[in-house]
Amino acid sequence: MSWKAIGIFDSGVGGLTVLREIIKTLPQEDTVYLGDTARVPYGTKSPETVVRFARQITSFLVSRDIKLLVVACNTASAVSLDELKAEFPIPIVGVIEPGAAQAAKVTRSGRVGVIGTAGTIRSSAYTKAIKKINPDIEVITAECPMFVPLVEEGWTDNEVARLTAGIYLKKLKESSVDTLVLGCTHYPLLKGIISEVMGDGVTLVDSAEETARVVREILAEKGETRPVEEKGNHHFFVTDVPAGFVRVGNRFLGGALGDVYQVDLEKELLQGGRV
Amino acid sequence: MSWKAIGIFDSGVGGLTVLREIIKTLPQEDTVYLGDTARVPYGTKSPETVVRFARQITSFLVSRDIKLLVVACNTASAVSLDELKAEFPIPIVGVIEPGAAQAAKVTRSGRVGVIGTAGTIRSSAYTKAIKKINPDIEVITAECPMFVPLVEEGWTDNEVARLTAGIYLKKLKESSVDTLVLGCTHYPLLKGIISEVMGDGVTLVDSAEETARVVREILAEKGETRPVEEKGNHHFFVTDVPAGFVRVGNRFLGGALGDVYQVDLEKELLQGGRV
Repeated sequence: MSWKAIGIFDSGVGGLTVLREIIKTLPQEDTVYLGDTARVPYGTKSPETVVRFARQITSFLVSRDIKLLVVACNTASAVSLDELKAEFPIPIVGVIEPGAAQAAKVTRSGRVGVIGTAGTIRSSAYTKAIKKINPDIEVITAECPMFVPLVEEGWTDNEVARLTAGIYLKKLKESSVDTLVLGCTHYPLLKGIISEVMGDGVTLVDSAEETARVVREILAEKGETRPVEEKGNHHFFVTDVPAGFVRVGNRFLGGALGDVYQVDLEKELLQGGRV
Repeated sequence: MSWKAIGIFDSGVGGLTVLREIIKTLPQEDTVYLGDTARVPYGTKSPETVVRFARQITSFLVSRDIKLLVVACNTASAVSLDELKAEFPIPIVGVIEPGAAQAAKVTRSGRVGVIGTAGTIRSSAYTKAIKKINPDIEVITAECPMFVPLVEEGWTDNEVARLTAGIYLKKLKESSVDTLVLGCTHYPLLKGIISEVMGDGVTLVDSAEETARVVREILAEKGETRPVEEKGNHHFFVTDVPAGFVRVGNRFLGGALGDVYQVDLEKELLQGGRV
């Protein structure tokens, strides 16, 4: 058994969809969440820069003595998971492999679509992960850079969102995929419109549930889950001031977030942390 | 006379519209530009965080021995100009006051619209600056958070951009403003659609030209302009890898950018800079 917390990070607020599933699956566990709201978004930035940010955040969370880390950001999972695993001596779970496994499991036609940020799609991380499970599956991908701003603006069900989805999903619809991976934690909030454009025959895969299942498996295997009668505490850190995170975060988490603290990662680094 | 360069910074690539006007107005001057591409955008972030970023960048540029600093980002101008002026002993020019002066000059009806990021609009910086010049001018403002992602996506003339502009500008159109300040360096790329929505009777004000004029005045007054027969050199720094900046930057600057170097502001700080 380990009383340590589970660490989770995202570029901002989107990873709360993953946290929500972890709380549902493992209500007895403490969690520490970091949202890098001062530097969000990651999806438009280079792999080098995202790896640098991910290493800083992981250092911070590891210094808080976590037993497992969840990289809840698709872009960070896509480009930094190998580096983080090589550098830090704790189990690290990304959202790409769980989402890929789920897609490979549910597709009937063997034609899977993946949508995500430019960073995620250009890394080909989903395509590689799906092909590793089943090389016969055909993977068709599309970058959707406007989806994150649409969700942040709260435009999840208007004509602008509908038109934008129509443009981004055209190629995937024409490719007759039967499964579509929502490869960004913001996208589940656009599920309604994405379903509308893709049609009823297409199953939407959201990595959050599957990721929570993987986390439970790893902890169970290592005998590190807390007793089931416990009730976990949840701590939140952000790099910008908390106000915006609290407002949008409540929409994601569907309830009271509790206390959110601001952390200055640069100062943490200056005060003897690793860079 | 001073041979030192003019420093310019922006959250990303947008400030190049200001640089372009400075080069046109003062072709003999050297310039050093910094685009904070690893942390862009600023418009959605808190004043505290934007001030912190602005101070770091100004320290970096001042350490390169510039004679004047242009804050080419509307959000940073709106929230950090006073702090920067108090802290650094060189002339510092923002884009708000020049834009406000221009708007106050061209309006006939005394009804001026201002559009910008959430950070810029919530600061009321334009409203204060315009009212300081003429308290009788009525200022109507609107946040347009989707405009920056639209420009970055290259969607400056499609149905999504048209619909979005229609939503954001509705209130301003109904208020019958005769002048509209484009309070974000990205917006001039949406001029076509903004004009279409607002109609022919509305003059669009872009701060870039006016800011370049103010820079020339200050340098002339202090006797610090270089001889007119000189031809300035232009250096570029970014905080993410240069590739994306070079691609989008050429669209803004309308030509070859030259060499662009990456700088790690955190490392600069660790190496004995001020925080």
